[in-house]
Amino acid sequence: MAVYTEVPDEELAAFLAGYGIGPLLSYKGIAEGVENTNYLIHAETGSYILTLYEKRVEPGDLPFFLGLMEHLSARGVTCPTPLRNGEGETLGQLCGRPAALMTFLEGLWIRRPGVVHCRELGSALARMHEAAADYPGARSNSLSVDGWRPIFAAVADRADSVAAGLAAEMETELAVLEASWPDDLPQGIIHADLFPDNVFFLEDKVSGLIDFYFACRDALAYDVAICINAWCFEADLSFNVTKARALLAGYFDHRPLSKAEVAALPLLARGAAMRFFVTRLYDLINHPPGAFVRPKDPMEYARRNRFHRSVTGPAEYGLEP
Amino acid sequence: MAVYTEVPDEELAAFLAGYGIGPLLSYKGIAEGVENTNYLIHAETGSYILTLYEKRVEPGDLPFFLGLMEHLSARGVTCPTPLRNGEGETLGQLCGRPAALMTFLEGLWIRRPGVVHCRELGSALARMHEAAADYPGARSNSLSVDGWRPIFAAVADRADSVAAGLAAEMETELAVLEASWPDDLPQGIIHADLFPDNVFFLEDKVSGLIDFYFACRDALAYDVAICINAWCFEADLSFNVTKARALLAGYFDHRPLSKAEVAALPLLARGAAMRFFVTRLYDLINHPPGAFVRPKDPMEYARRNRFHRSVTGPAEYGLEP
Repeated sequence: MAVYTEVPDEELAAFLAGYGIGPLLSYKGIAEGVENTNYLIHAETGSYILTLYEKRVEPGDLPFFLGLMEHLSARGVTCPTPLRNGEGETLGQLCGRPAALMTFLEGLWIRRPGVVHCRELGSALARMHEAAADYPGARSNSLSVDGWRPIFAAVADRADSVAAGLAAEMETELAVLEASWPDDLPQGIIHADLFPDNVFFLEDKVSGLIDFYFACRDALAYDVAICINAWCFEADLSFNVTKARALLAGYFDHRPLSKAEVAALPLLARGAAMRFFVTRLYDLINHPPGAFVRPKDPMEYARRNRFHRSVTGPAEYGLEP
Repeated sequence: MAVYTEVPDEELAAFLAGYGIGPLLSYKGIAEGVENTNYLIHAETGSYILTLYEKRVEPGDLPFFLGLMEHLSARGVTCPTPLRNGEGETLGQLCGRPAALMTFLEGLWIRRPGVVHCRELGSALARMHEAAADYPGARSNSLSVDGWRPIFAAVADRADSVAAGLAAEMETELAVLEASWPDDLPQGIIHADLFPDNVFFLEDKVSGLIDFYFACRDALAYDVAICINAWCFEADLSFNVTKARALLAGYFDHRPLSKAEVAALPLLARGAAMRFFVTRLYDLINHPPGAFVRPKDPMEYARRNRFHRSVTGPAEYGLEP
């Protein structure tokens, strides 16, 4: 959470003039997104989000992300829709940063998702996969199996300070994942970060998906595995198979997984847990003392990974093998 | 800027249920106000601000502040209006903190106020003073002349680390202010912190005043002196007498200052500069290393104080003596 860039009113007015949203009524820096600066804008025509992209987003990736949101919106997926400025561009420049203006989505993210939310989420995920099927943009997943080891290697020598034996355990697990990671599953555009705080609900129905800044091309079932990790564990890290079954049922309503995808799911779930484990471990160990953002606990994902290792087959996620 | 308290959605929904604002559509923590946690709420009936009062606000003062905003709103001063909950109270409790729900004001604060804004501000200040005249609440000004020395004394031994000779200079000035501070000027409710970021404009007209959490009973002309300090100096700390004249003309349109108030203005302006100097000096010297909020520069107010000391009479603010 942070506003990194303070935007003076004159610069903002000049930036917004090209979008045809009418006079600016108010703008507030909002405390969301650790990666970017976000303002909630009230104009005469409605509410908008202005995002200034800070250094953690690769500017060259922005056309992919903004194009994807525009593509999904046009196909009925409710997500922030980038507006086009006077030059017909979705990507502008403000205070020396790439910037975009998007529609504001009403909705609340669910702090403690229940079974009903997991089913809704599964359905929304499958519909997003379907809607993105003809998106022409290309972006490979730098946080897939090949990306985990370099991140882990950078901090492995201090992993045992987080938990005894962690370095050796995860070293072994990485080798297993690298040796067995499937490369022949159906590919498509995945969100890759569809955690509860990126899914808005109104009255227990999904009202929108946000934060597409990890989206990329990868195995669609890997996105399902990420969601199982993010949505189906309780606060004590016990696995709630009823939630997993609901999530998968919602997904299958729109896009049934193939036999190969079902068979791969336990391994994909191990990998998805590893992906968040390594980035959290890295962020924890490289956390500047006194920084405002509290690092997330990597052990939450080490424990998820252990659970998935203990699984004997897809049936444990509520799937027919 | 900060969100200090994260409010879970269930607790928020329960809190809001009593206010009759319709279903909650969204809420965003906003990066405004270093003292409190603020959320911008969208509900079916409109936009609201939810404030959770953090430790720097004295809970016993909240009825005074909320009552004042309600009083001013009823008399046509556009300011946040506290809503009443099911028990008919403006002050509630949320996440263990005092909390209030208020109307949201559209408007932008002016980063670089011009002459036209100073005249508008003067007018709005006088109208606020008039509207508050029959407010029965009592709160003395702990940051008036008697309050400056204890704050200064707590950090005086380190003042010279900010600027050589500063401790002795301000010690002398404090003694002058204490010896000559007037106690017979017209009193009333003052805002006491009406800086540009607390005044919203739409199309160069004041659209609202916010942040009444320093309001108290004190000399009305002292509030004018605070505004002269906050609005009439340029970024290089040169004094813009055209802005001061405009501010005072706007004020005089609604409430002309008496001869005694005019005569006291240079001294009040010295004191107002001292008030912000001592609190900024204290905050700078007691600033926790690595804290997110950057302390404001006390020297900006030491320099304003020096300017006011150099003034030979009210004519230098554009006033007839």
